[in-house]
Formats: sequence, structure tokens, C-alpha cells
Amino acid sequence: MSIEVLPPSANDPKLARIRTLLEDDPKLVEKVETVEPKWACPIFKAEKWEVMQPNGEPGERDIVLHNGGAGVCVVRDGKMCLVRQYRVALGRMTLEIPAGKIDPNEDPAVCAARELTEETGLVAQSLVPIAISRSAPGFTNEATRVFYAQGVSQHPASPDPDEFVDVVWVDVDEVLAAVRAGIIQDAKTVISALFVASLG
Amino acid sequence: MSIEVLPPSANDPKLARIRTLLEDDPKLVEKVETVEPKWACPIFKAEKWEVMQPNGEPGERDIVLHNGGAGVCVVRDGKMCLVRQYRVALGRMTLEIPAGKIDPNEDPAVCAARELTEETGLVAQSLVPIAISRSAPGFTNEATRVFYAQGVSQHPASPDPDEFVDVVWVDVDEVLAAVRAGIIQDAKTVISALFVASLG
Repeated sequence: MSIEVLPPSANDPKLARIRTLLEDDPKLVEKVETVEPKWACPIFKAEKWEVMQPNGEPGERDIVLHNGGAGVCVVRDGKMCLVRQYRVALGRMTLEIPAGKIDPNEDPAVCAARELTEETGLVAQSLVPIAISRSAPGFTNEATRVFYAQGVSQHPASPDPDEFVDVVWVDVDEVLAAVRAGIIQDAKTVISALFVASLG
Repeated sequence: MSIEVLPPSANDPKLARIRTLLEDDPKLVEKVETVEPKWACPIFKAEKWEVMQPNGEPGERDIVLHNGGAGVCVVRDGKMCLVRQYRVALGRMTLEIPAGKIDPNEDPAVCAARELTEETGLVAQSLVPIAISRSAPGFTNEATRVFYAQGVSQHPASPDPDEFVDVVWVDVDEVLAAVRAGIIQDAKTVISALFVASLG
């Protein structure tokens, strides 16, 4: 089974109303007055921002700034390529599409292709954008770009020496059942599974 | 148009292999040795964890701990209920399904129902779990529970006085086009739109 996924169209007339709804609205916009750095580490920066709310009242916002990531949905013969790994922040194993952090100024598609090949040895002829996933816009700018791989071939993997991962192929139907049951939880993987299901 | 969405089955035989793949694997598990608090604010805690990696080498992990949230996908007559708001962490307006932060020890479905009614005045007869969205498991335990509302009726809204939001109804087709184009980015909203699309 191979599905051709078309790139999104930036000129789709369906986008007109949404673009209007996303224009800055003075009744809703808040302005950043001061930024107080709280902690910076290699992965993110935590800051407290003083803001002016739309009603003229001051407010405080606790923010995590992150450079974002990119992941790739690969489906072959009805199976999705997933990486089995331990996530210490969750205290448990997860199943996630191949993905990684974007280096500063790196093109998201280049990052996605690099991570895919490092972790799995897979090389894609093309990576079509599925969606951008802003994980929790209430407190962080973190965004993961999700791509769909087409024309995939297998080459040797070359995982980072400090990356402990195991590649598995799982039936899309099983992934979808696990998403519905809340057992597969990773946002980029949930999005990938539902995207494939939406193709019918 | 009204679609009936069935609750997920915890006993689905499709889940058996996934459950096995998600069991702790000593080759992949890392152990937390020490926790160093870095910054605590009302929304999250940032910490540096020293870990023992599966190969016996020490490592450092930068972690954001967050209590999580809950959101509700409401579709009536082919339109999705979205909240238009400004997200200062992104520096822009967003369109998101109604949602909010879970209070300590609060049931996610109770939180979802509360936020739905506060923000939009909508009351649902039932909330069916769609998915749990772990936003970025590489550095945070943040999870948003996403529900699908059934049997929805309109009542007066009662937004928090410090919440500046505007409720709009947008064609599901428009939301999906905006997801594919990367214009609607919020993870719980992307998941909701793709879930509705996957229903066919």
C-alpha cells in the first residue's frame, strides 16, 4: 500500500477566513513589557514576562522558549515506523515517530530527514508537511514540524551514541487503537496516526 | 450532521502488542539519580535531573513539570467550535479548541466540561476521550486530554475576567486546510481536526 500525499496549498481559498481570524485583534492582544530570565539550559530557557493585558491591567506570564523539533511519519505496507525509547520526563517507555530537535537555523525538513536516517536508516525521496504541532501554547513556543515520507528506502542507521532507541513497525490500526485508548500519547505520533486515518 | 463517537475499548486485542512494546526495557531505561530544582512558578517547575543511562554512563536532563490540561472538540453542522485568543509565548493570535489547565487532583473530564462551559457556554451530555497529547516528551511531562463532545446545548458563557477570548465556529474543511498549511498549529486542535476527518 502506498498513498500519495499532496503538499498543502498556501493559496487554498479555504484559508481566507482563517487568515482573517488570525490577524491581531486589539481587544485580545497583550504586550510584553519586561522579560526576566529565570533559567537557561541547553534545551530551553525559562522566563517570567510582565505583560499589559488588553484591558490595561498588568499580568505575569511564565514562559518556556524552545527551538522546536521535526518528526517523520513513515508508513509501509500498512505499518508505521515507530521508535521505542525511554522518556525520563514521563518515567516510562514511549512509541514515537522518528524525530529530533532542530539545530539553530536548521531547515525543519533537513532536520526531519537527518533524524529519520540517523535513527532508522530510512531515506525518503520527499517529505510532505502534514502539520505544525505547537505543544502547549499557553506557556511554550515549542513547535514540532510533522512530515509524511514518500519513496522510502532502507539504509544503515547511525544513532547518536547517547541515544538508546529501538525501531519497530506497527500496524496503523494498532497505533490508532492505542491513540484512542490513550496508550500512545506523543503528540506528533498521535497527529501522524490520525492523519493517515484521515486519508481513508 | 451528528456523528456518534464510541468510547475507546481498554480490552481491544489490537492493544496487546503495543502494551508489550511499552513495557520497561532494561536496555533503554534510564534511572533518575538526583533532582535539582531550578525554577518554580504557578504554571510549571523547571528542574535538572542527573540520570544513569542504560550503558552505565551519567547524563543530564533538563525537565519541565506541568500539571497538564484538557480540551474539548465540539462539531455542530460541520463547524468546529474554536476559541480565538492571543498567545504571548508565540507573539500571535491562535485558534484553539476550548481548553484549560487541570487543577491539582481534578478529573480531566470535569476540567474539560468546566472550561468548555466557561469559555463558550456549551454544555455536553457526554465527553468521549479522543487522545492524550504529550506535547514534547523529550523535556516535559505536559499532557493535554482531548475529548469529543456529544449532545451539546448552548447556555450563557462565563469566561474568567482575566481571559480574553472570542468564540468562533469554523467549517471543519477550513480547519483541516489550515492544519495542512501549518496555519492552525495548536496540537490539541490539530488532533481534533484530524480525528473528525478520520471519522470520514
